[in-house]
Amino acid sequence: MTAGPFRVGLLGHGTVGSAFAALLSERADAIESAAGRRPELSGVLTRSRGAFDEILASSDAIVELIGGIDPAREYALRALEAGKPLVTANKQLLSQHGDELFAAARTGRTQLRYEAAVAGVVPVVRVMRESFAGAHIEKVHGIVNGTTNYILTEMARTGASYAGALARAQELGYAEADPTEDVNGKDAAAKMAILARLAFHASVQLEDVPFDGIEEITPDDLDYAKEFGLVLKLLGVAERLDGGASVRVYPCFLYGGHPLAAVGGPFNAVTLESQAITEVTLSGPGAGGPQTASAVLGDVVSVMSSPGMELEPAQRLRFVPEQDVESAFYLHLEVQDAPGVLARVAHVLGENGVSVKSVVQKGMGENARLVMVMHRVAEGRFRHAVDAISKLDLMRAPPRSIRVIEEEFVG
Amino acid sequence: MTAGPFRVGLLGHGTVGSAFAALLSERADAIESAAGRRPELSGVLTRSRGAFDEILASSDAIVELIGGIDPAREYALRALEAGKPLVTANKQLLSQHGDELFAAARTGRTQLRYEAAVAGVVPVVRVMRESFAGAHIEKVHGIVNGTTNYILTEMARTGASYAGALARAQELGYAEADPTEDVNGKDAAAKMAILARLAFHASVQLEDVPFDGIEEITPDDLDYAKEFGLVLKLLGVAERLDGGASVRVYPCFLYGGHPLAAVGGPFNAVTLESQAITEVTLSGPGAGGPQTASAVLGDVVSVMSSPGMELEPAQRLRFVPEQDVESAFYLHLEVQDAPGVLARVAHVLGENGVSVKSVVQKGMGENARLVMVMHRVAEGRFRHAVDAISKLDLMRAPPRSIRVIEEEFVG
Repeated sequence: MTAGPFRVGLLGHGTVGSAFAALLSERADAIESAAGRRPELSGVLTRSRGAFDEILASSDAIVELIGGIDPAREYALRALEAGKPLVTANKQLLSQHGDELFAAARTGRTQLRYEAAVAGVVPVVRVMRESFAGAHIEKVHGIVNGTTNYILTEMARTGASYAGALARAQELGYAEADPTEDVNGKDAAAKMAILARLAFHASVQLEDVPFDGIEEITPDDLDYAKEFGLVLKLLGVAERLDGGASVRVYPCFLYGGHPLAAVGGPFNAVTLESQAITEVTLSGPGAGGPQTASAVLGDVVSVMSSPGMELEPAQRLRFVPEQDVESAFYLHLEVQDAPGVLARVAHVLGENGVSVKSVVQKGMGENARLVMVMHRVAEGRFRHAVDAISKLDLMRAPPRSIRVIEEEFVG
Repeated sequence: MTAGPFRVGLLGHGTVGSAFAALLSERADAIESAAGRRPELSGVLTRSRGAFDEILASSDAIVELIGGIDPAREYALRALEAGKPLVTANKQLLSQHGDELFAAARTGRTQLRYEAAVAGVVPVVRVMRESFAGAHIEKVHGIVNGTTNYILTEMARTGASYAGALARAQELGYAEADPTEDVNGKDAAAKMAILARLAFHASVQLEDVPFDGIEEITPDDLDYAKEFGLVLKLLGVAERLDGGASVRVYPCFLYGGHPLAAVGGPFNAVTLESQAITEVTLSGPGAGGPQTASAVLGDVVSVMSSPGMELEPAQRLRFVPEQDVESAFYLHLEVQDAPGVLARVAHVLGENGVSVKSVVQKGMGENARLVMVMHRVAEGRFRHAVDAISKLDLMRAPPRSIRVIEEEFVG
């Protein structure tokens, strides 16, 4: 056992960086008594002070909390190649440059830890990496963006518009001034790329993950869906499929009894599925400064006590095209109020092999609508049917569709 | 890096032992590529074959799946004292002999892993031990017995009696032929002792954990409670309190929006709370052979890659007496149908400082009842009031009371 302190070099001293520095000093005694070494800061790099080379040379591990790609990428690669364990919360970096980061960790025979990059304080990375290291993970899915989950919860609860709920989220600090990457699904896609890489031991980068956001969701959709007992969530899904995999992010209706349906507000939740474990769900608040700092500190304690290395080169994986992935769908049609409308719509769906699970006719005259839920069908087939329906003369507006997770909760 | 295989000595070859042996061989390739060493069985000890000394000498780690106290205790102590990491699923052993096991691990400068002893495949031990090693855990609570959770879910869903739901649980394999230690709360108490030790870094044994079971629960209680929006669960709670701690197991009503209220059937779920992390909930199926084997294998992979040791001697902790712990309460009184009954009951409650949150009068004549929910109050004070009420001449039967968790879910 090494007697000296464990020296941590900190890159970045913003909200998370300073919260981490404070937490490290607050918990140093407890960590020393549990892990046998005392962690301490060996240096802090900010825009205005500190020199990376000196910090690297005088540290046992590097914590990267600068964020963004440059210069975080260069520092991370140099630390790993020099054999220093790296702890980071940087989802952009991991999802866009994962291949070279993990290659650098293998070169340096050291480890890369990134619990704080995904799902805040919910320890899904560690659980996959360690607890289920012996399991073959089939599917990872969940709610990995707290901003959009807050907005959708608020829209459903109060009937607020998307814009109104977003403004409220910004007031409460759940959404940033520029929420683009949260609401368009890109943030969730980056996190799903990171989780999919870990689950499937494969190269998955942001560009492999198609994503849709929640900007087009209307209170209307939420209202009608309620009648079917459906709750809307922005879902990230990574699953093995046909010898390959599919990783994607989209707004999706869940039945009320689904374990993720009850996850409200700015919370995150991730479900892991494998034959050996059946399924395990982890949930908790999304990232905030203190939560992120706590997740980073957990990783620091791990690299202190375990000299692990990244060993497995990432495999190449075939990504199943979106059009071949099966889903159930909700379909909302504003139609003319005339006899035979439902029959004509049903005919087009049937021709395309799309089978209707339930349908409700709403409104009269200029307000007539068909609100339908379909059985599972390949997405390409469904899109083809919707295209054909959109060309029928009976349509008063473009069709609106949202995916649906069909399984009910079997508790 | 050591080139040779990682030799695992297996004690016990029952349901879990044989599932573990099969899973180890199935996953050996994947573990080798991820962890750099190949795990393999060095020997198996059963009642009829194998010699413990030989297995110990030829193993890098010992997996104890015999169960019960003797001879598991002796083998576990000898393995740890010899410096061999021990992985066990044995909750009896850990909850009754935890102090000496952890002392032996410190003597042997090795580690004791026991994920499978609590909450099946839900990785709560690892998450507390590693992810939240840097956090000060205030409270751990949850559903840690799948048998009772199935029975209570079934009673609420179908109106079945306790005996009827138990019989159904036995049919489905969710309850053993002798379910005593599940239904009386002792199994959950053992698990809470293990979790409390870990959360508070303190000596907690089974005898420190008062427990109540679910044998006395009637469909009546569940029906009335529904009107208040309450769901009944057998809850384990470990919390820091007044400079000490309280660890206990009891049937408890939760409001419908509580995150644990939605955990149905044979599922387990545990919520961890600390200031740094707010709260994190982990849920999944309770223990079955394959799930337990998967949790054991996760621990084996950990001891392969991390030469950690148990370092921290357990602190002594003051346990707060049950009568000083505050709860809200549900109270069910079969009373005479006469004017002034509610006033007399309310008077006794008021005298004892117990304040009523809501009350419903049910039935007429020989079927008259008061069903009440109280605000939080010290348990001793509430019991005193109930004693006094039970002596009133207006009572037709002994009062029935059940604790209630007051907080509504803030999602």
